[in-house]
Amino acid sequence: MPKIDIASVPLKTGSTYPEPYNAEMEGRSSLKLGDAGGLTQFGANLVMLAPGAKSSLRHYHMEQDEFAMVTQGTCTLIDDHGETPLSVGDCVAWPAGDANGHHIVNTSPEEARFLVIGTRTPTETGYYSDIDMMVKDDAKGFAFTRKDGTPIEGND
Amino acid sequence: MPKIDIASVPLKTGSTYPEPYNAEMEGRSSLKLGDAGGLTQFGANLVMLAPGAKSSLRHYHMEQDEFAMVTQGTCTLIDDHGETPLSVGDCVAWPAGDANGHHIVNTSPEEARFLVIGTRTPTETGYYSDIDMMVKDDAKGFAFTRKDGTPIEGND
Repeated sequence: MPKIDIASVPLKTGSTYPEPYNAEMEGRSSLKLGDAGGLTQFGANLVMLAPGAKSSLRHYHMEQDEFAMVTQGTCTLIDDHGETPLSVGDCVAWPAGDANGHHIVNTSPEEARFLVIGTRTPTETGYYSDIDMMVKDDAKGFAFTRKDGTPIEGND
Repeated sequence: MPKIDIASVPLKTGSTYPEPYNAEMEGRSSLKLGDAGGLTQFGANLVMLAPGAKSSLRHYHMEQDEFAMVTQGTCTLIDDHGETPLSVGDCVAWPAGDANGHHIVNTSPEEARFLVIGTRTPTETGYYSDIDMMVKDDAKGFAFTRKDGTPIEGND
């Protein structure tokens, strides 16, 4: 049955970020709708942001296109251009390789939600604009490091 | 600016289907939002269905994942399992290669809208469940034929 039984999709909370960055992701949760429907070529996730929560740390992808549509509430796109208010129906596109670090923050007093799509590719590199962190995904797995490739934990 | 200026995106009407099938697509229009935002790896289109209109002829993709979320009104998913009502927030996923011909029909008296995402791949084959038509997309281009590969026009 192609219709996704949203109520049965497990709620994902927290992030895969190493500490201390994981602690910044409080109030963000998501439903992996595309995975629930058996898709593999892109992720299609419904992201839920409590007041004050952010979608991610500000980042950009080198190999993966990303697209989002706000489906509930109001929130704010923050990127190299500044702050852009978003409301239901607003859409944002981030082409692969565009070095414009971005995230979506809920600055409103109500929950905000958006659907986000991201291509899945065999390899990927992502950079975090405001901190000394990058992520690589390849045949060896998914790993966060400092931008010079050294480990994050235990270096401070 | 990653936020898409939806009002400036050209409205696409009609279809690329050959006649007589193109005539069945009246009342369907779409906005190619992902293209407007510079994306190339997947299409992200807002499809608008007037009452009685359909998203496409019933079809399935061999190589491309597809995902849709209803954003306005109510409509009906029609596939090999029968009819499934859809309303705002409902999501549907069609994995590549699943031979379950599907489309979305607006059986309501009000306009319905959904966001649909489809992977872009170097080659693709699609089959139309209810008619003798298939589509191939490859280095030679995009072409509709009968399922035996012969031309559609002029064969009746």
